[in-house]
Amino acid sequence: MTDTQNANASDQEDYRHCEEYFNDVSAPLAFDETISNVQLFIGKCAPNQRTVLITSGATMVPIEQNTVNYIDNFSTGARGAASAEYFLENGYQVIFLHRNTSIKPYERLIPSALKVLEVGSAACCFSTVKVKADQFVKVRGVLEQAAKYTPSLFLLPYESLGEYMWFLRGISIELQQILGSRAMIYSAGAVADFYVLQRDMPEHKLHSDVEPTIKLSLTPKMLLPLSNKWAPDCYVVSFKLETDPSILIDRAKKALMTYHHNMVVANILATRRKTVTLVESTGKVIQIDNPNQANDIELLIVKVLEERHGEYIKRS
Amino acid sequence: MTDTQNANASDQEDYRHCEEYFNDVSAPLAFDETISNVQLFIGKCAPNQRTVLITSGATMVPIEQNTVNYIDNFSTGARGAASAEYFLENGYQVIFLHRNTSIKPYERLIPSALKVLEVGSAACCFSTVKVKADQFVKVRGVLEQAAKYTPSLFLLPYESLGEYMWFLRGISIELQQILGSRAMIYSAGAVADFYVLQRDMPEHKLHSDVEPTIKLSLTPKMLLPLSNKWAPDCYVVSFKLETDPSILIDRAKKALMTYHHNMVVANILATRRKTVTLVESTGKVIQIDNPNQANDIELLIVKVLEERHGEYIKRS
Repeated sequence: MTDTQNANASDQEDYRHCEEYFNDVSAPLAFDETISNVQLFIGKCAPNQRTVLITSGATMVPIEQNTVNYIDNFSTGARGAASAEYFLENGYQVIFLHRNTSIKPYERLIPSALKVLEVGSAACCFSTVKVKADQFVKVRGVLEQAAKYTPSLFLLPYESLGEYMWFLRGISIELQQILGSRAMIYSAGAVADFYVLQRDMPEHKLHSDVEPTIKLSLTPKMLLPLSNKWAPDCYVVSFKLETDPSILIDRAKKALMTYHHNMVVANILATRRKTVTLVESTGKVIQIDNPNQANDIELLIVKVLEERHGEYIKRS
Repeated sequence: MTDTQNANASDQEDYRHCEEYFNDVSAPLAFDETISNVQLFIGKCAPNQRTVLITSGATMVPIEQNTVNYIDNFSTGARGAASAEYFLENGYQVIFLHRNTSIKPYERLIPSALKVLEVGSAACCFSTVKVKADQFVKVRGVLEQAAKYTPSLFLLPYESLGEYMWFLRGISIELQQILGSRAMIYSAGAVADFYVLQRDMPEHKLHSDVEPTIKLSLTPKMLLPLSNKWAPDCYVVSFKLETDPSILIDRAKKALMTYHHNMVVANILATRRKTVTLVESTGKVIQIDNPNQANDIELLIVKVLEERHGEYIKRS
């Protein structure tokens, strides 16, 4: 077989693996209703406007059918939440598909109510509540931003890997059908590399009379159907996080070859708030530096992506 | 062997299992300094006052030495957080040993700042920030309570099962030495039943070129050394959650026989906010009913425990 035939055979196997996943894991509750709401939201996109689907946070992997225990990972969703704010400021509608417990846009900028508020004495007989003086300007600014952009922000929480996968597929298909190239998919979520098949899961909570083992299976690479079948016209951005700088750019280029999508945001764990490299399928490589971290680096990433997405829309 | 000899032999094995755990898992960062701070806090307990250690929330179990992925469970820490408030109202000092991400006392009662605050127009030229009218009385009440009781509340977050275990042992020993019977240990935390031994863990993040299995080991039953070696004079309360009502009370009595502690708060998953049974090692069984859920059931549980703890102090 030639290399191309090999690649196609490998693609076919990956597609099958993805199909099998959806056969194994049932759809989230009220899935159709949620997708209808997403559809309405996407439909509000003005003719010269764009919409981005941002995925953010970790995915929970159940290890029992009646789940008490699960596997999780350390993603806080900070990058996704910050990016959502900057896409909104750049005029995008934002669908924020996030882990229910992860960091949310705007909320990330204000500590809890208990920390920003205090009881003070009012002019008359009873006490009042006010924002602490040193937090006032910041809190007011965040509230104003949040109020301004809330109509353009669709918050969609998920918990498990299965919910994430179903929503990713469902929303991508809607974006493709309604907006095509005017939609971007920005997959910043920390998707589990492994999960437990239904048939490898006990029905009830693991009991403490035996020492069990958990058999893990590979999570299918959804980037392939995402950028080739579900949303071939959308501008698809993936992330690559490595610890070894010498292999980073090659890995990013390899991912673009494998999944045929549009952009990889490549970064090194230790320096990911200071520097990232954007590698586009067009061959363009853009280095972004934020040495003093005066702003979130996501401000700069989103600015470049907005420009590249604009070029992409013109070409298509 | 007689039954007593059998029991003793089984106890000895359990003690060894606990010892082995602490040999396998290293102490949290700054452990000695934290315990010194706890010691100072306990030392502030007035002569006629009491102190309770509350454990609350789930424990994270690493599956890699450089942890990216971990096993977790669904406890939110709601019961522990509510109980802390009622112990404070009953005059206790409270050490709140909680999962870093779980629900905290007082914070649980107020939604995020973004939800309770709004920008309003002020008398003069610029805008102001105020608590929404329908939330005002509640928010003010919670802030006043939090301010009143903060000096009697020591918040100590943990993340992993190992951190939890080290702190539980360290604090119990201090409570025993400084306060004896005037201390209560209220273990409401959802401790993992299983963990992964250091030697069964890969050094780095699991890689997606193989399908790994995770070998789990039983978590040792720390209630035995807790109530017999670390804090034999403290009033020790454990929790038992079952789904089958017909076995609940027998299981609670069996736990008291096995671990030789003072009280089991026994409840059924489906009705745990409406009814609990308190089973004491003295033979006393107290049923608590909260049919309308007008108040938190923890208000009633803590009231009874305060009274039983008082009786225990008189006897000792």
